[in-house]
Amino acid sequence: MGKYVYFFGGDKADGNASMKNLLGGKGSNLAEMAGLGIPVPPGFTISTEVCTYYDREEGKYPQGLEEEVNANLRKVEELMGARFGDPENPLLVSVRSGARVSMPGMMDTVLNLGLNDDTVKGLIAKTENPRMAYDSYRRFVQMYANVVMGVKGDSFEKLLRAKKEERGVKDDTELTADDLKELVPKFKAVVREKAGEDFPTTPRKQLWGAIGAVFRSWDTPRAVAYRQINAIPDDWGTAVNVQAMVFGNMGNSSATGVAFTRDPATGENRFFGEFLVNAQGEDVVAGIRTPHPINIGQKAEGSELTSLEEEMPEIYGQLVDIYEKLEAHYTDMQDIEFTIQEGKLYMLQTRTGKRTGFAAIRIAVDMVEEGLIDEKEALKRVEPVHLLQLLAPVFEGKAKEEAVKEGKLLAVGLNAGPGAACGRVVFSAEKAVAMAGAGERVILTRTETSPEDISGMAKAVGILTSTGGTTSHAAVVARGMGKSCVVGCGALHIDYASGTITVRDEVIKEGDYVSIDGTTGEVILGELPTIPSEVIQVLIQKTKAPEESKVYQQFSKLLSWADESRRLGVRANADTPDDAAAALNFGAEGIGLVRTEHMFFEGKRIDAVREMILAEDSEGRKKALGKILPMQKEDFVGIFDVMEGLPVTIRFLDPPLHEFLPHSDREIEELARQMGVEAGKLKKKVASLREANPMLGHRGCRLGIAYPEITEMQARAILEAACELIKKGKKVEPEIMIPLVAHVNELRGQKEIVDRVAKEVAEKYGVAIDYKVGTMVELPRAALTADKVAQEAEFFSFGTNDLTQTTFGLSRDDAGTFLPMYVERRILPFDPFQSIDTDGVGALMKIGVEKGRATRPDLKVGICGEHGGEPNSVAFCHEIGLDYVSCSPYRVPIARLAAARANL
Amino acid sequence: MGKYVYFFGGDKADGNASMKNLLGGKGSNLAEMAGLGIPVPPGFTISTEVCTYYDREEGKYPQGLEEEVNANLRKVEELMGARFGDPENPLLVSVRSGARVSMPGMMDTVLNLGLNDDTVKGLIAKTENPRMAYDSYRRFVQMYANVVMGVKGDSFEKLLRAKKEERGVKDDTELTADDLKELVPKFKAVVREKAGEDFPTTPRKQLWGAIGAVFRSWDTPRAVAYRQINAIPDDWGTAVNVQAMVFGNMGNSSATGVAFTRDPATGENRFFGEFLVNAQGEDVVAGIRTPHPINIGQKAEGSELTSLEEEMPEIYGQLVDIYEKLEAHYTDMQDIEFTIQEGKLYMLQTRTGKRTGFAAIRIAVDMVEEGLIDEKEALKRVEPVHLLQLLAPVFEGKAKEEAVKEGKLLAVGLNAGPGAACGRVVFSAEKAVAMAGAGERVILTRTETSPEDISGMAKAVGILTSTGGTTSHAAVVARGMGKSCVVGCGALHIDYASGTITVRDEVIKEGDYVSIDGTTGEVILGELPTIPSEVIQVLIQKTKAPEESKVYQQFSKLLSWADESRRLGVRANADTPDDAAAALNFGAEGIGLVRTEHMFFEGKRIDAVREMILAEDSEGRKKALGKILPMQKEDFVGIFDVMEGLPVTIRFLDPPLHEFLPHSDREIEELARQMGVEAGKLKKKVASLREANPMLGHRGCRLGIAYPEITEMQARAILEAACELIKKGKKVEPEIMIPLVAHVNELRGQKEIVDRVAKEVAEKYGVAIDYKVGTMVELPRAALTADKVAQEAEFFSFGTNDLTQTTFGLSRDDAGTFLPMYVERRILPFDPFQSIDTDGVGALMKIGVEKGRATRPDLKVGICGEHGGEPNSVAFCHEIGLDYVSCSPYRVPIARLAAARANL
Repeated sequence: MGKYVYFFGGDKADGNASMKNLLGGKGSNLAEMAGLGIPVPPGFTISTEVCTYYDREEGKYPQGLEEEVNANLRKVEELMGARFGDPENPLLVSVRSGARVSMPGMMDTVLNLGLNDDTVKGLIAKTENPRMAYDSYRRFVQMYANVVMGVKGDSFEKLLRAKKEERGVKDDTELTADDLKELVPKFKAVVREKAGEDFPTTPRKQLWGAIGAVFRSWDTPRAVAYRQINAIPDDWGTAVNVQAMVFGNMGNSSATGVAFTRDPATGENRFFGEFLVNAQGEDVVAGIRTPHPINIGQKAEGSELTSLEEEMPEIYGQLVDIYEKLEAHYTDMQDIEFTIQEGKLYMLQTRTGKRTGFAAIRIAVDMVEEGLIDEKEALKRVEPVHLLQLLAPVFEGKAKEEAVKEGKLLAVGLNAGPGAACGRVVFSAEKAVAMAGAGERVILTRTETSPEDISGMAKAVGILTSTGGTTSHAAVVARGMGKSCVVGCGALHIDYASGTITVRDEVIKEGDYVSIDGTTGEVILGELPTIPSEVIQVLIQKTKAPEESKVYQQFSKLLSWADESRRLGVRANADTPDDAAAALNFGAEGIGLVRTEHMFFEGKRIDAVREMILAEDSEGRKKALGKILPMQKEDFVGIFDVMEGLPVTIRFLDPPLHEFLPHSDREIEELARQMGVEAGKLKKKVASLREANPMLGHRGCRLGIAYPEITEMQARAILEAACELIKKGKKVEPEIMIPLVAHVNELRGQKEIVDRVAKEVAEKYGVAIDYKVGTMVELPRAALTADKVAQEAEFFSFGTNDLTQTTFGLSRDDAGTFLPMYVERRILPFDPFQSIDTDGVGALMKIGVEKGRATRPDLKVGICGEHGGEPNSVAFCHEIGLDYVSCSPYRVPIARLAAARANL
Repeated sequence: MGKYVYFFGGDKADGNASMKNLLGGKGSNLAEMAGLGIPVPPGFTISTEVCTYYDREEGKYPQGLEEEVNANLRKVEELMGARFGDPENPLLVSVRSGARVSMPGMMDTVLNLGLNDDTVKGLIAKTENPRMAYDSYRRFVQMYANVVMGVKGDSFEKLLRAKKEERGVKDDTELTADDLKELVPKFKAVVREKAGEDFPTTPRKQLWGAIGAVFRSWDTPRAVAYRQINAIPDDWGTAVNVQAMVFGNMGNSSATGVAFTRDPATGENRFFGEFLVNAQGEDVVAGIRTPHPINIGQKAEGSELTSLEEEMPEIYGQLVDIYEKLEAHYTDMQDIEFTIQEGKLYMLQTRTGKRTGFAAIRIAVDMVEEGLIDEKEALKRVEPVHLLQLLAPVFEGKAKEEAVKEGKLLAVGLNAGPGAACGRVVFSAEKAVAMAGAGERVILTRTETSPEDISGMAKAVGILTSTGGTTSHAAVVARGMGKSCVVGCGALHIDYASGTITVRDEVIKEGDYVSIDGTTGEVILGELPTIPSEVIQVLIQKTKAPEESKVYQQFSKLLSWADESRRLGVRANADTPDDAAAALNFGAEGIGLVRTEHMFFEGKRIDAVREMILAEDSEGRKKALGKILPMQKEDFVGIFDVMEGLPVTIRFLDPPLHEFLPHSDREIEELARQMGVEAGKLKKKVASLREANPMLGHRGCRLGIAYPEITEMQARAILEAACELIKKGKKVEPEIMIPLVAHVNELRGQKEIVDRVAKEVAEKYGVAIDYKVGTMVELPRAALTADKVAQEAEFFSFGTNDLTQTTFGLSRDDAGTFLPMYVERRILPFDPFQSIDTDGVGALMKIGVEKGRATRPDLKVGICGEHGGEPNSVAFCHEIGLDYVSCSPYRVPIARLAAARANL
């Protein structure tokens, strides 16, 4: 027979961290700490093999296990100077489950095992605290009965309540030692009644009961279901950890505390924590007593309470040694728990500490500089989305906290665009433009937004909608613009007619101030001051010098390491020279998507666009397009100029033409008046363009095929812009992207037009233009026939928004009624509009890449959907061999980091 | 060096039909005929190898070719008793191109080659017809100049016009021999001017000029483009056929004619044709002289003109021998051309004759009975769509012809549902129901139809729309119902308000009669009598006994052969017991799709459906659904009863709920009154259900997931219906189909509900139910993850309508604005809603079948989209291993035949 039980404690251990499969996560970590010479309460781990045996043999233990347990228990007794069941000096233990991976659904913990009517007296003698002893005893009975014997907690709670009523008190803490002592037999009576057997009185019986309960908990329905969902094999099993209890409440030489090896909020390299003398762990967390700072440095921040460093300098010194050893060993910031029992320090737990985005970056960069980790490891330590926190504007100081305290939190919606924003409520894009023009900050507030709201969204400081999900039009555009955005805030009843928002009894009028936090989804009444983040002050606003901002320097350093480590290129989606400039500042290596339709809405252009739509024939359309040409050319000159020779992928007009026309009778009549056309004619045109499913309608390249004049104008604008810059000696790399191609013939025809125009333009300007023509792969058919499409396409760019819509047969605009329910019920593991559905959409992408490159081995392939800035999707793009991802400028740093992590 | 030239003529030939690659289609056929002892004008074929040589060597001929051509030309001269270039007895030849496959874009023909100022005199001497000789001469110059020397025809036409003006005549035929003689030198002058060289006068120069022109025509841009589109290799090359000219206009012992070896209209086995004495081939076709019947039998039909059988009995006898030989040889009905030159019969051409659907079936069946072909060959001879003609109602007698003559043809739209129908115009479904109830036949006339029109469509004899394509709602539903249907008839201006259709100056009011022919798309004013086809009279109406109908017997015989030859099963889509009965009569082996939503619209049910939609909670919905349950159960009892144990696949509710509610304010208000609910509440509900893209919205299984009560009710209705029949000792095989599954989890949840209900129902009735649960694969994601979906699905049925929509990103409802243009310009080779797009949609189907069967090898896979009744699609389904196709009942015979042909 093999070895089943592994000891740890007294600076020694049978196991170590590498033995997770055998000892589980918790057991191997305790062994590791003990092996490092860290003082942990001694104990032992019964291996996962025993669990497997127990399972297979239906509740039997392997031969020899009992002897091993006894032998190890003796070692614990020796080290603790106490004995299991000894009425004078009792050893108490905890029993915990611990599988390879942490797994909810299994038995968690039984504390203070070993207590009975005899040993409780020993505990009183040792702690001189009868109240604590009886409280521990009645808790132990309750906990054991619950997790080992299956007796529900409510019977015990009822007794507790009755006792409080009897005593005329409100809180448990007001019950005396005698009160609690009286409860113990009552609790045991409940156990007898409910479980049909007596509560075990001998510690050894208690111990084996708990061990069996841990092993049985491996097969509870909840645990089995969790394993199924998370693909955890049934035969891994769990280990059992039996560990001596230590007490921080054995008088004034005892204490308990928690600490972080670095500041979890800022990442500053300083030991940081809290403790309480003569207390148990839960007292520190519960907030009944105010914890003391752990050291003098921390005390300097304003606390008047004595620090551990002052109170127990020797122990503090040990703790410092230990935390340094732990951090050096685990090479990451640790979150530790410790207890001091009668002047002896025990480490109860160490684990990687949770931290803010700010802290994550600082710790990673500092640790590289300290030589603790290398740069690759630093990249692994920072979650890409952490970076967003460094970029988003913030509410200043404590203002928000106070507002919330004052009851000004109106509602919490979906956090669709991170950052804080504050402004006056407006209900229309026009009003937003007007008020912003007058110097006001505005929050554009709509039930939902549409492309016609773009100008207003651009002028607003924040966008707030009552409907739509995190991939609704409002959310997508807001993120693209880097605006604070809260969507789907159903609690807000927006009434355009009366110009009000009603929330419960509160009525907010147009012009009133609201503050929204797109990082949290909070909507707060009133004006809260916001400031741009430090990184933005340096990178975009240039109001702060890089050398003044430590945060910026670390951000920048981390990303430079990321750039060295990644294979995948990172571009940005940008529609204006300003966006392009921001993209460059964020480290974009090109523009992966210029959406030209946004340009069609701006200012006077919409008039010419509408004139084109209403034209009777090709000549009429050409005339109207002629008016747009110079304006559109200027757009491209601006973007090319900023990008200085980096590739710029421009997508031809994509949305159906009806998006450029108004829809209500009133609006149509007004437009007809403006344009000097008959209202009836305009209405007819609007009606004729109406579509049952615009998403699947006359849009994308289908427009350019029906109206080649549009393709020709756009090609001319792009290529003439390129030539103008080339003539000035600048480099330009335009990539013309034909949208919504389903069949190679569509692309072929559009490419012919572009090539013809290119020839004409090159002759006119007398220069050579180096341009490419490619396509957006956004329909399943394009991916499935990528070998044929690549005969014409010089590049692919996956339009994963539309590809997801068509692959799932799911409209992003309409998914709000059921998709959240799907994700909530785990019918879908996640929202496929947020992260690429690798099984379905991803399968098409793989087919697209493989077939495309089979025809054209050097085919450049990218992605320009919203997914291009989402870390898991970036990793998938890396995996299937894409050349680059493109995302909104603010997401470029995220993509750079995600790309590097994917390549590690 | 090899042999380059292949002789045919005088009952002998160097080649035969198997040498198509070398001699081209035309050359090998001529050789075959000659080899059979059929008198063809002698000639020779220059092989395709010479073309390849000519191409490769840039215009050079292989050594020895000239000698071979000369030797063969001498043989022709001998057989014809004339000499090339002989001014007294000239041999004239034709020169034609001829590749393996017929290929537009190549040089076609030069006739009368060998004519010049000398030989024309010999021709006059032989024919005693100077006008004919000079007309041939000037035509030869024009034709040769055009196809060999590249001189466009308009210059010649100008001279011809001038001559007619000069002579004061209108028609070419009025010009005299002298007029034409004068034109020849003028034509030659044009050649000199335009081509820069003289028209060749020596026949030999003419001959080599024409041969070179044929070879060069292989590489004209049009020919190259045609080959690219049709994937014809460039190195196939074309052959050149040089053949003696024969003349049917050399006096009264000469003649020319065309004939079919069987009647191409009815298929009757009788020799059938026309001829003219002293005439050229084009005279027979041109219609200036009335052609004579070819035999006495034909004459009996009323002609008073002398037949060939009477006029030239000996020649007629030869012709009969020849046609019998040809038909026996080619074992198919032949379309032949012949010329009699001075008492000698020459066959100019034989080819497989075009025929009607009626003739195709009769000929195929007769030939099997005659032992000419076997049953498999018969199946190859009948195009599946031919069968539709046998099923569609027809206008009686000559009524239509007369109406058209009287100018009553209003317009021609798209022929969306074959067959003739006549009735009174109605503009709404309600009116259709009302008038049909009163015993009137009605034509439901709408700009377009929607599901709310179903009841009216069912009551109408025909459906006529002014918009929409052949896959519009109207077309699809009409075909499903087997109704006559003309759609997209844009010439009709339908005005619901005034209740009129305006076509040009004609105004048709509600209640006026129109007649529509869905086989041709014609819309005719007035009442034309229609009768059901003979097959329908026998098969469905049972008004005619099978033994009374020869057409039915042949139809039935052919299909019984088809059933023996096919592997693929054929089911029908049917929503009612009547449809199911029709499907059985048409030979369906099960129901592949019962659409339950149609059942939701019927009669009072819509009220309960609306009540369900408006319910506040699950309880309210259950209450409303409780009212639908017994009605829906009855539907299924009816269908199961008819199908007697054959499999019946029932799809759960599919369309979005807003389809069951009215949309205009007026209708909503009226419904609110009816239902006794507040109009405002109803409007709000309608607004909340409105979707941007209903096709991609809250429909299919998404409904059953959001409202499990619906799934439960439908499952209960199906399974209780099954139990009721089982209790009566009947067999029932229900297959429950969950629509619009994108992820296996959706199916899993719905299946759980069905299984639970099945258990309850089986217990309640005390019988075992043998049912299956499967899914409609109609989203790309379902196909791409078919391995996972098949973990739950017991069968797949491809919903290729939706699969095509999502794969192409193309809404069937909206495609009308550009899809026809796509097909017209060959951007798409065909309408993917009519025939499966094998490259894209088909690729997904293949993936679906392979992955699905990888998980579940015995997975039953079918198709229930519109494509299931389209022959090419049926062939594809056979090829990828589907188990069955399902289509509308009227298409079942087509599918049966197509399935057999696919398996041959």
